[in-house]
Amino acid sequence: MSDTKQTFPDMILRPVGVVHSEIKKPMLAAGESGLSLELRMEKVKAHHREVEECICKLVIDPEWEELLDGIDGFSHVLVLYWPHLIDPARRKLRKVHPMGRKDIPMQGIFATCSPARPNPVLVSAVPLVARNGNVLTVKGLEAVDGSPIIDVKPYSKSYLMVDKLKMPDWMEQIHRELEID
Amino acid sequence: MSDTKQTFPDMILRPVGVVHSEIKKPMLAAGESGLSLELRMEKVKAHHREVEECICKLVIDPEWEELLDGIDGFSHVLVLYWPHLIDPARRKLRKVHPMGRKDIPMQGIFATCSPARPNPVLVSAVPLVARNGNVLTVKGLEAVDGSPIIDVKPYSKSYLMVDKLKMPDWMEQIHRELEID
Repeated sequence: MSDTKQTFPDMILRPVGVVHSEIKKPMLAAGESGLSLELRMEKVKAHHREVEECICKLVIDPEWEELLDGIDGFSHVLVLYWPHLIDPARRKLRKVHPMGRKDIPMQGIFATCSPARPNPVLVSAVPLVARNGNVLTVKGLEAVDGSPIIDVKPYSKSYLMVDKLKMPDWMEQIHRELEID
Repeated sequence: MSDTKQTFPDMILRPVGVVHSEIKKPMLAAGESGLSLELRMEKVKAHHREVEECICKLVIDPEWEELLDGIDGFSHVLVLYWPHLIDPARRKLRKVHPMGRKDIPMQGIFATCSPARPNPVLVSAVPLVARNGNVLTVKGLEAVDGSPIIDVKPYSKSYLMVDKLKMPDWMEQIHRELEID
């Protein structure tokens, strides 16, 4: 399979807009790995609550404004963005302790939501609050201020909704601790 | 906002694997636009059923195999892939009739699931059937055979599940016609 790269098309992304948000830095800054588990989780929880309530703007380049026509018929959108504050060298990471938690066994990057991944395209479904011209207002997006927007899609049931979801114990545990239903 | 591009990082994707599938061409081939609405929808419906039942392989480059460790704890994964058969010139499309249907008003590309979009990164949540080494078996992925895989993520409730989804009438109608619950 390693010859596949030669025949693939160029996959170069161009930002179609930028996130304007009160969230100024990623949840787990690298310098915080020395914190105790308890303090760490307190911080993560506080950050998570801040994100949940955060109302932010997706400012789409005016060149692409027309592509938003009709989007306000959807209650939710899927936002694809690039975590621009993550050091590109971290695209080579192979395994991590989820959320930096040493009490959880290492997991392969594809089994985690880590922003450090071979192709750091982050995906989040969020409620659409409003559309005004080239600006979408959304709620609860974790993207930090200044993140390049790659794509905006409608939240379509057929591509995104699943039945009988099962997640491993470690992720259930994190959801419980962060009080995510 | 049009100065943003200068300060953005390079966003170059590298395929991490390739889709092996019985699905050999996209749902709506360009040459089919002359069909009657009825015949068109019959074809779309047949394609949709074929996709739903399709079991396909995500063959991850052996270089990245380790990144899959732990993924079999999830019932569903989110697959990001590139629709490589779509002519790159179509990244400039601005509006379309959803599924080429003239009876539905034109919508901006960001309000549709069209594979022709400024950054054609397609996203689909699918059941994970099995993992064997560097190969994931999944069900119901619409990607055509040979599509480059950009990313595989766990289906995490917190990023992807929504409450009280509302979609516009035209998309509800398409879901009804394709018998998607």
